[in-house]
Order: sequence, then structure tokens, then C-alpha cells
Amino acid sequence: MQGIEEILRRQIEKIVELTDDEFHFILSHFTIKSFKKHQYVVQAGNPTLNDHFVVKGLLRSFYLDEAGKSHILQFAMEDWWISDPQAYHNGGNATLNIDCLEDTQVYMITLENREKLCAELRKMEFFFRKKTQAGYIALQKRIQSLMSQTAKERYDQFLHLYPQLSQRVPKTLIASYLGISRETLSRMAEH
Amino acid sequence: MQGIEEILRRQIEKIVELTDDEFHFILSHFTIKSFKKHQYVVQAGNPTLNDHFVVKGLLRSFYLDEAGKSHILQFAMEDWWISDPQAYHNGGNATLNIDCLEDTQVYMITLENREKLCAELRKMEFFFRKKTQAGYIALQKRIQSLMSQTAKERYDQFLHLYPQLSQRVPKTLIASYLGISRETLSRMAEH
Repeated sequence: MQGIEEILRRQIEKIVELTDDEFHFILSHFTIKSFKKHQYVVQAGNPTLNDHFVVKGLLRSFYLDEAGKSHILQFAMEDWWISDPQAYHNGGNATLNIDCLEDTQVYMITLENREKLCAELRKMEFFFRKKTQAGYIALQKRIQSLMSQTAKERYDQFLHLYPQLSQRVPKTLIASYLGISRETLSRMAEH
Repeated sequence: MQGIEEILRRQIEKIVELTDDEFHFILSHFTIKSFKKHQYVVQAGNPTLNDHFVVKGLLRSFYLDEAGKSHILQFAMEDWWISDPQAYHNGGNATLNIDCLEDTQVYMITLENREKLCAELRKMEFFFRKKTQAGYIALQKRIQSLMSQTAKERYDQFLHLYPQLSQRVPKTLIASYLGISRETLSRMAEH
């Protein structure tokens, strides 16, 4: 188990330093869970009780539009977080689905435990504030990309930002994430 | 001055309750500044030293793509925050422009003062964590809207979410925010 604990510890220690006692206290607020490839972690229409920190594997979050077409919002591999943030933070049922593209292992934390942890350990309130801030900036860049980049520019940026993901994620799914057709992406990937 | 102080206090007290002393301590970390219609608050290529909380007026943030076309990322009216988050939080020069669509008055806070305030007053760390979380969720909805909604659906959602903005912002600018042409928006607005 030490390997996966270290992945969580390194993630937090990129932002705040921890003593061993502090880390074990933090860890006691998480539970670990394994999922098989294709298994659902969150399903639209059900509550989203947990935020998920990936220690092994690969997931995606996606939703169906009114015409029943699927759109990928996010991928998450080792060292990334994934959830349906609206349902997790505000309650109500998930509108997103999250499933596993590979066999996956995650540390899960309920909102209650997250808030308790933030209240009990100031460093963790700082950590989550800074993580959310970085996430906000990343989403704003994604909006700019959707608003003003061509399909080719989006694809090149994806390869540049996420070289590992582009090796592990099937092209059909990258196309869905980028909002372009599979055929367009195939043509670009050949050149 | 009491009126505008109250706008800031109510904004914070939606999330945490404050004593008078706490609020005056918080206020001492902000400076107030007035801008005329058309004046720039942030200019691409220059540092973004402040986050801005609007107490009067209306602003927009926008950027120019490589072809020189302008895209609006955000509007902000009374009780909203606006900045170039990447430049403000991570340093470096702004890539966004922020200018005033009306005569405007803002409370400004530097990153240094914001971090000091968070360290000094736990309630403010909680406040900024929750505000950023809510902002993250709003941006994720905007991404979903850009990925899967038609121009008409986006326009209707804008009218529904921001009835006040749609009265105050010229249609050309709403079209730029929604990523649709002025002509398309005019046709929709007639019906």
C-alpha cells in the first residue's frame, strides 16, 4: 500500500509540507476503492458522494446532451482528481457519468470528511483552495480553446499538454473531449 | 461610502458571518478605485496586480485570438469579481483585457493582501475556497454549453441566468460572449 499512499502525499506536498502525523491524519479521512475497466464510479441520476483522487488507472467524465450524444468533459489518470463537482459540492443528483477506461484505484473523500479535514487542519484548507484555483484557471483555458481555436490547434494543444493521455486514450474519446469528429481527428493524426 | 462597503460585506456574509471588527479588518486589505466607461482595468501584456470586486458599473474581460478576433470571456456587474486569474495568481503578464462598459467602481485586492488576509483570518480562507469552488462549477457549465448547446439554447440560457446583464449589455457583446454571430443573435432576439 505504501506506493499509493505516496502518490497522495506527493500531490498534497506540492502545495504544503506535511509531517508524518499530519499525513496519516489526512489519510484517515479517505477510503480506497478499486474499479474494473468499464465500471461506473458516478452515474447520472444518482448522488455523487465522493471526490476521487486517482492512484492507478484512467477515468473519464461525460454527459449525454438532449439529442443523446455523448460529450467528454474530463479525463483523469494518476495524480488527478475527478468528480461531478456540482453534485458533490451542492448536493442533488449527478448530471455527469464517470467510468473507468482502465482498471482503476482511487482515494475517495466524502464532502463531510473534506470539510472536517479543512476545519481540523489549516494546511488542507489552503491545499484545496489552491487546487481549486488551479482548476479554475485550467477550465478558463479550455473555454478559450473551445471559443477560438481550430480543431487542429485544439488537438495539437492536447498532445502538448497531455502527452501521456494521448498515448492511453482511444482517438474516438479524444475527439469527443475536443468537440471534433473522429474523422477530422484521424486526418490530423496522420500528418 | 457606507453603501458600497455594504455590498462587499453582504457578498462575504453570504458564506461566512462577520463581526464589525472583522469586516473593518477585511476592508483594510482592499483599495477602492473608480474607472470611466471605456477605461481599461487590465491590459494584455501588462501584469495583473489586482482582483476586482465590482460595487458599481459593468466590465468585461476579453482576448484577441491569433486572427485578431475579439472573444468575450466574462462580464462582471455589481457583486461580481473579475480579473485575469492566471496572471493574478501565477504572475506573468495578462493575456486578457478588462475594460468598463459603464462608469465603474471596484474594490481591488492584491494577491499579497489576499494571501495575508487568508492567513490572518480563517473565515476568509474559507470564503475564497467556497467562492472559487462555485466559480469552477460555473465554468464547467459554460464548457458544457459551448460543447453541446445550439446558439438558440445558449442565448435562452443567458437570458435565464443573467436577466440583468441582458438588459445592460449590447447585443454585439452578448453574441461575442456566446460565440455566435451578431446576425444569428439578432434573428433569435426578434422571436
